[in-house]
Amino acid sequence: MNYRRVLKVLGSLLLFEALTLIPPLAISIYHNQHDRQAFLYTIAIILAFSIPMSLLPQKSNRIKAKEALSIVTLGWLLVAFFGSLPFVFSGSIPSVIDAFFETVSGLTTTGATIIEDIEVLPRGILFWRSFTHWIGGMGILVLTLAILPTIGVGGFQIFKAESPGPISDKLVPKMKDTAKILYSAYLGITVIQTVMLYFGGLSLYEALVHTFGTVGTGGFSTRNASIGAFNYSSYIIMVISFFMIASGVNFSLYYEMYKGRWRNVLKNSEFRAYMSIIFISVLLITVNLNGLYSSVFETFKHSLFQVASIITTTGYTTADFDQWNSFSKAILFTLMFVGGCAGSTGGSIKVIRLVILFKLVKREIKKILHPNAYVPIQINKKMVSNDVVASITSFFFLYLVIFAVGTLLISLEGVGFITASSAVAATLGNIGPGFEMVGPTMTYSHFSIPSKLLLSLMMLFGRLELFTIFVMLMPNFWINE
Amino acid sequence: MNYRRVLKVLGSLLLFEALTLIPPLAISIYHNQHDRQAFLYTIAIILAFSIPMSLLPQKSNRIKAKEALSIVTLGWLLVAFFGSLPFVFSGSIPSVIDAFFETVSGLTTTGATIIEDIEVLPRGILFWRSFTHWIGGMGILVLTLAILPTIGVGGFQIFKAESPGPISDKLVPKMKDTAKILYSAYLGITVIQTVMLYFGGLSLYEALVHTFGTVGTGGFSTRNASIGAFNYSSYIIMVISFFMIASGVNFSLYYEMYKGRWRNVLKNSEFRAYMSIIFISVLLITVNLNGLYSSVFETFKHSLFQVASIITTTGYTTADFDQWNSFSKAILFTLMFVGGCAGSTGGSIKVIRLVILFKLVKREIKKILHPNAYVPIQINKKMVSNDVVASITSFFFLYLVIFAVGTLLISLEGVGFITASSAVAATLGNIGPGFEMVGPTMTYSHFSIPSKLLLSLMMLFGRLELFTIFVMLMPNFWINE
Repeated sequence: MNYRRVLKVLGSLLLFEALTLIPPLAISIYHNQHDRQAFLYTIAIILAFSIPMSLLPQKSNRIKAKEALSIVTLGWLLVAFFGSLPFVFSGSIPSVIDAFFETVSGLTTTGATIIEDIEVLPRGILFWRSFTHWIGGMGILVLTLAILPTIGVGGFQIFKAESPGPISDKLVPKMKDTAKILYSAYLGITVIQTVMLYFGGLSLYEALVHTFGTVGTGGFSTRNASIGAFNYSSYIIMVISFFMIASGVNFSLYYEMYKGRWRNVLKNSEFRAYMSIIFISVLLITVNLNGLYSSVFETFKHSLFQVASIITTTGYTTADFDQWNSFSKAILFTLMFVGGCAGSTGGSIKVIRLVILFKLVKREIKKILHPNAYVPIQINKKMVSNDVVASITSFFFLYLVIFAVGTLLISLEGVGFITASSAVAATLGNIGPGFEMVGPTMTYSHFSIPSKLLLSLMMLFGRLELFTIFVMLMPNFWINE
Repeated sequence: MNYRRVLKVLGSLLLFEALTLIPPLAISIYHNQHDRQAFLYTIAIILAFSIPMSLLPQKSNRIKAKEALSIVTLGWLLVAFFGSLPFVFSGSIPSVIDAFFETVSGLTTTGATIIEDIEVLPRGILFWRSFTHWIGGMGILVLTLAILPTIGVGGFQIFKAESPGPISDKLVPKMKDTAKILYSAYLGITVIQTVMLYFGGLSLYEALVHTFGTVGTGGFSTRNASIGAFNYSSYIIMVISFFMIASGVNFSLYYEMYKGRWRNVLKNSEFRAYMSIIFISVLLITVNLNGLYSSVFETFKHSLFQVASIITTTGYTTADFDQWNSFSKAILFTLMFVGGCAGSTGGSIKVIRLVILFKLVKREIKKILHPNAYVPIQINKKMVSNDVVASITSFFFLYLVIFAVGTLLISLEGVGFITASSAVAATLGNIGPGFEMVGPTMTYSHFSIPSKLLLSLMMLFGRLELFTIFVMLMPNFWINE
């Protein structure tokens, strides 16, 4: 492992973060609010660290797997640490731990908050808070579609052949091409949604902030009532629902659409499963909640919004779903373990893994009836290798083990089982709100410091596909071979 | 598929059931209680069906895999149906559905009850109720150690080479030899525990009934307070704890002990994992509940008893654990998904599957660091084939899917998430009590008829290792090939 190379890349990453602090600074200056100093100090501190780091002399720019893993994990941690400084400096979140939690929540596109009253905070700070979703979402796309498949983490090798752009053996050029295509789609969706929200009556500021929360599948809002604050306009609710669902789709499908290969999109196994789960869930909840809202359309609207929000792991709310019927709540709790499509900004287990696990069960049943039959697992008519299947089953098991251990540890707070388990499911799955004491009208502020750190770790675990962090915890990871 | 052969074997099975009704009948006659008629009628009905069935002419006695699967599933259903008649005829459980639920619960060694006041029922009926645990436990041992490994259901092929007794290619002789050894161990443990409970002050009747509930890992008691009724005697509590743990051990290990091969027992991966989980759980709960009971020993005693009861899926209680701290409750909830060792009378997922899944995760981490390394999965120094690993991961996933779907359906009752999910976990895992409305002091009587049938199905799913039933649901199962 070449530590200098790792440091150098981390330095560039931090330089990039300094750049991302300019838009919120500009907003702060424009509105002449007190948080402007906070951004200036933060930028200065970041530059003081990142300039020397990025200037480290380095011969080759080829990055090895271990180095890539270190950069990903340390990168997310460092960006979160420095990104939390504006909250502390401006006094918006006085506690360093709380500010760290909030920034990790932003960058991992979780959207779990510790802020009780959002609406009193300055505009630059709130812009930055939501902007971290957008930056994080960008990072995730590159991570899951370009970096992880090459390293072989979590079964994402299935995208090796499918990922858009020219395929190359070398990590760096391939990453750059893939990244360019992804960013175009990401930026395109961002622009369209912002415009559509703006024409729906939101200010440009609120349109932008809520677009960041949507395309990053994050969920931070500028309103205490989240999207419920716009319940007066069904248009806004439907637009956000649509874009949440769109952000939960594998982004390489947008490349297929761009190339006019619609057949590939409509025949995609994961896309079909994802849309079917949404359709069935919305239908069941709409029927189950019949009579709760003023009209069938209203019930459908909240049902669609909440299903889209939870399955894509966004976490926006238009209704206090913790007050819904048991059955509807149980559907939402189940969706917390589904998540978006792989290669989207969504978190949790991801639809593709569940599709492959279902195929594994189907094969098992066939094999009992025909013990000598050879039944390969196929996705989109391509064979899934045994290695990928093993990666996926390991991921699924590890996800549930971390969920169980996390729930046990949070239970030490003395909170009920639903609070503890849904808090862990909502952070590990990068969703945001859970049930009861972490429900839609509540925040994570009541947890103790160790629990807040644990939940931050859960967000990172989920976002970095578990293994990225687990591998680094192995002692021989750090030994040069 | 040879339907006549299936009917013939089912006929013999029912004849055997008629025999098992003689002991409760004898008790009823001895105590001169009114339930004696109920047993006589039931025996007459069973004989009317089973004698013609078992007399069906049949050439060969070789049984094919499909036939074995049909016999297992239909056998369990038929024995449960006829076994529920004494409850109905005696008026102890007037509802047919309730009686069926109670008998399925007995035969699957679940121990979930719908009876509000157990102590008013006649002695013959209560003996029969607990005796179904003992009969069911016997059936499970043969099923998981002799039948399923041969068919290849649920990854139990790992026992193909390990199961005790001479190995033969033909199903029937091998089954008979294995069964003989298992029954000896089962009977031996039953006798020793009964004697030990009798010397602890219980009547022979109560000693026997509670032994049935223990060795079958069932959990039906003759007391409304379950084992809590004997809290005055730590000796009784400790004896039952010990035998619950002993009944959760793979019974083929008793064959190893009998042969003096103690090394094989102590080096057995599953046994070690099982004992470690119990040790750690008891320790954590004892510390967590410190001060709740009159002394550290009392806390330890209840903690040991409850951990043993839940992990072995027995379901006896000495304390209302639903009143315990969140952390302790969360441990018990987690243990509901662990279960006993494979080849024991315990249910749920089973320790061996979790051990293999953990090894899969470990291998995955190694593979990320060394992409070209070949890392086989080993258990007790023997390689586990890819087929077995696939069976086990499919089982694990299917188990959780059934759990999720079951919880959703039970949620339609309007009960809370903890009631719904723990009711499904406790029936699918063949445990018995859950939390809240199905907690230690509650019963399953408040559920609607569809829910009671669903939970009965859950008990059968769990007991028959899921796939046994799923395979039969495939349309081409019933086509002769």
